[in-house]
Amino acid sequence: MLIVGERINASRKNIKPAIETRDAGLIVKEATDQVNAGAHLVDVNAGVFVKKEVEYLPWLVETIQAAVDVPLCVDSPDPKAIEAALAVHKGQPMINSISLEEKRFEEILPLIGKYKAKVVALCMSDKGMPKTADERYDIAAELIERLTKAGVPLGDIYVDPLVMAVSTDSSFGIEFLRAVRRIMEGHPGVHTICGLSNISYGLPLRKQINQIFASMAMAVGLDALIIDPLDTKMMANILTAETLMGGDPYCAGYLAAYREGRFE
Amino acid sequence: MLIVGERINASRKNIKPAIETRDAGLIVKEATDQVNAGAHLVDVNAGVFVKKEVEYLPWLVETIQAAVDVPLCVDSPDPKAIEAALAVHKGQPMINSISLEEKRFEEILPLIGKYKAKVVALCMSDKGMPKTADERYDIAAELIERLTKAGVPLGDIYVDPLVMAVSTDSSFGIEFLRAVRRIMEGHPGVHTICGLSNISYGLPLRKQINQIFASMAMAVGLDALIIDPLDTKMMANILTAETLMGGDPYCAGYLAAYREGRFE
Repeated sequence: MLIVGERINASRKNIKPAIETRDAGLIVKEATDQVNAGAHLVDVNAGVFVKKEVEYLPWLVETIQAAVDVPLCVDSPDPKAIEAALAVHKGQPMINSISLEEKRFEEILPLIGKYKAKVVALCMSDKGMPKTADERYDIAAELIERLTKAGVPLGDIYVDPLVMAVSTDSSFGIEFLRAVRRIMEGHPGVHTICGLSNISYGLPLRKQINQIFASMAMAVGLDALIIDPLDTKMMANILTAETLMGGDPYCAGYLAAYREGRFE
Repeated sequence: MLIVGERINASRKNIKPAIETRDAGLIVKEATDQVNAGAHLVDVNAGVFVKKEVEYLPWLVETIQAAVDVPLCVDSPDPKAIEAALAVHKGQPMINSISLEEKRFEEILPLIGKYKAKVVALCMSDKGMPKTADERYDIAAELIERLTKAGVPLGDIYVDPLVMAVSTDSSFGIEFLRAVRRIMEGHPGVHTICGLSNISYGLPLRKQINQIFASMAMAVGLDALIIDPLDTKMMANILTAETLMGGDPYCAGYLAAYREGRFE
């Protein structure tokens, strides 16, 4: 399971001032904490600043990578800010995200090739947000076809089928799960990823819902998550689900995590 | 989700003496508690007594049904004990279980027809316990074919793909999940059921593993569980997973359970 840590996002109240005041200490601590908790990549998002993103994102990349040896997931609506960040990034970055919205697709595609980046391929098109598994699958299939034709390795594509709130439509959970399964079965070698907190929007006890939904998504094949790795219950659930999915020979990872107190 | 309450089992230390001393009060309380916690059927198992089962099982059925209006799941290795229990049962019973072991199949089949019972169809044959999803599916398909040919309605069949400990073979979780999916997709209208506690045998924090495995099994289509409904965390997980699977219009069941404090 690939874990992308989501905490360095300027929409969070301690991150925004840390970026504005160039508080490298806080940013590095947030990155280090996430890596120590199990994140394989760290997402960086300065989207709330709009025009200053092109300046802030590269600073985030350089600040984090000066202190922690971790690839970053560069998360921005602004292609110029993404490119500025990629230009200073060491190792293989991840871009968050390309979609089937034509303008977005054309802007992001060259960056993937130039920087040999992994990419989150969001199931969204100019027709809007997909609702059913079929709509998600169709967008995913077209994204995968166009990306691989352009030379992006299948294994660098992380399709995000787009989680929407089950409180707005009771079919949104099952349609997402069906989409994950169809995408993983229809395109062996591709990955699926999501930030799943939207699923519980508008409901009480959101963390519990998110934790359960994560294990359900893993059961149908999801192999990457954008989450807060400091949510120890979530990380324990993911580790347990990996063991149950056969990804932990002799349950060695589970038993080690137990001995280390990571389930407490 | 169909919930079968598993607590009235003579292998549990308070149940065995209660049966021996005909302590109707304790038995009725165990049944009532389970129904109040959400059980749709109550399992009765007096298997530890061997020869006295034929006397104890009908007593359990009559004692419980005199006090609680609930169908029972009659659980015994002894066909004579099952028949004695079914003879006094009111409503549609469930038999736990038939299998593809030839002797067992021949003994249990007539009882299903005679008492119009639902039946747990255990994926076990004279070749032993199945290990892979394919082996489970083949046994399930043959059981379903033979049962339906004999006149058992497909919707009365609850296939149990047989949960085995992930600590003994790391593939046992994923092979079980694959089997559930194949059975549900290959035979629309049939049910799948399991008692899932075997999955965590030999590992620490078994309850957590069982709870996560339940939501994963629901994600691939499992629609019945034999569990302890007094495990409030398990029941909360199941309710949440049902909501996420689209079985809870407007999340009304989830919100009602939250207001009733059932997630605490």
